[in-house]
Amino acid sequence: MLTSRRVIRIEWGDCDPAGIVFYPRYFAWFDACTAGLLELAGTPKHKLFAEEGVGIPMVETRAKFLLPARFGDEVTVETAITRFGRSSFDVHHRLLKNGELGVESFETRVWTAVELTGGRELKSRAIPEALKRRLSGE
Amino acid sequence: MLTSRRVIRIEWGDCDPAGIVFYPRYFAWFDACTAGLLELAGTPKHKLFAEEGVGIPMVETRAKFLLPARFGDEVTVETAITRFGRSSFDVHHRLLKNGELGVESFETRVWTAVELTGGRELKSRAIPEALKRRLSGE
Amino acid sequence: MLTSRRVIRIEWGDCDPAGIVFYPRYFAWFDACTAGLLELAGTPKHKLFAEEGVGIPMVETRAKFLLPARFGDEVTVETAITRFGRSSFDVHHRLLKNGELGVESFETRVWTAVELTGGRELKSRAIPEALKRRLSGE
Amino acid sequence: MLTSRRVIRIEWGDCDPAGIVFYPRYFAWFDACTAGLLELAGTPKHKLFAEEGVGIPMVETRAKFLLPARFGDEVTVETAITRFGRSSFDVHHRLLKNGELGVESFETRVWTAVELTGGRELKSRAIPEALKRRLSGE
Repeated sequence: MLTSRRVIRIEWGDCDPAGIVFYPRYFAWFDACTAGLLELAGTPKHKLFAEEGVGIPMVETRAKFLLPARFGDEVTVETAITRFGRSSFDVHHRLLKNGELGVESFETRVWTAVELTGGRELKSRAIPEALKRRLSGE
Repeated sequence: MLTSRRVIRIEWGDCDPAGIVFYPRYFAWFDACTAGLLELAGTPKHKLFAEEGVGIPMVETRAKFLLPARFGDEVTVETAITRFGRSSFDVHHRLLKNGELGVESFETRVWTAVELTGGRELKSRAIPEALKRRLSGE
Repeated sequence: MLTSRRVIRIEWGDCDPAGIVFYPRYFAWFDACTAGLLELAGTPKHKLFAEEGVGIPMVETRAKFLLPARFGDEVTVETAITRFGRSSFDVHHRLLKNGELGVESFETRVWTAVELTGGRELKSRAIPEALKRRLSGE
Repeated sequence: MLTSRRVIRIEWGDCDPAGIVFYPRYFAWFDACTAGLLELAGTPKHKLFAEEGVGIPMVETRAKFLLPARFGDEVTVETAITRFGRSSFDVHHRLLKNGELGVESFETRVWTAVELTGGRELKSRAIPEALKRRLSGE
């Protein structure tokens, strides 16, 4: 599988009064990491959105927090796709701190036509086969 | 079980370019809802932290996103504890939009002595029995 | 002038490792307070955006931080318009903690046609006179 | 003056329903840029805080938003100190997009003993002279 890597420096504003990362920040980073993986595969999310009206909203996500990270820490997130459906796909993030697994997250997203006009439901679309192949590292 | 309810108004800054809530915001709200439940049980998290040096860091969380919410929407989060261990506990959040389940989330946290000096690991403590009883609605 | 009031409870995730509000959070609240003032005047920002394609992007803002606020604090923000131009307007926010001024902020925004397609510049529009009158408390 | 430079990639989650950066995000970046400048001068903020109990809370800040930035844009922030008092100092940030000034911000901070125990006021301290010289580029 194609794997993206992103180095993140933990900033003051990412941390809570206990001095560790406020966990919703991890999800914001993982969201950017999934976008980074798409970009690495030649399909930047911002072009997908602006040119094709496609988004990849989250259907389900989970994360396990194994090691706390603090202001000043540098961590690396490794991101890869682990499953493709017709329109849904699973993403796996491994956040490493000094080589150790600090946070692990899994997410399921759907390739979706974005209705800026505010429809009640989001409409899925088929993920392009060429992109699936590139994300699969073929 | 004791259940807390919190009404949340979705703001402009909570939403992404697709016009729906950027999902890490849900986790920030759920964090505040867990704090709200503790407060309802007579143990405000800010006193726990300031007076006893105790925090409740997240060990594991997951969420399912069933309905998108948009700027201007009003949603309600219902929060309750579903399991107590010695020091860990599980929380269940149900975010309702017009009475329908929009987001469902489960989390496991640990009652923890907060080391502001930055120890590598966080140290769990036993959850007070009286608090367990109040959170259980006894 | 019409003045809106909003009570804000400072949450754990709003605070930094020093235990006080991470100041960008104040700007997020002030943004919501300006939206709240428009709503109080009968013109909710979410309808403006969805139905008329109008936004109110920030041109300039400043804030003075006089008293720190901490997790568990409850503060009140009072918001009013202080000047109208043809398309620009100034907003004044006073954040009070126990009746004392904690943060004061001023902002200039522009009534703007939102180009979702990504034009380089934003285009101003005239603020409706009826809205000006309602915001002026006439 | 010593000037730090930081490249920021605008992410999906940084942007609002109008597709441009939600402006409180700029302040979060500027906060990290000020920390980056201190680090460049050999005094990382995370060590200052952990080892000396010193923080640099914001006293006053303002920003002018000249060009909108969108998801996928890459911007550069140039940061330098423009004034030193005994304990206060002024910082200037220039955010450039394709070489043009997109956002300009000024801030005044105070070198402060951080009271984790929650005192009502923050206590200023004298900024170390050696650091002033390094930040001045001497």
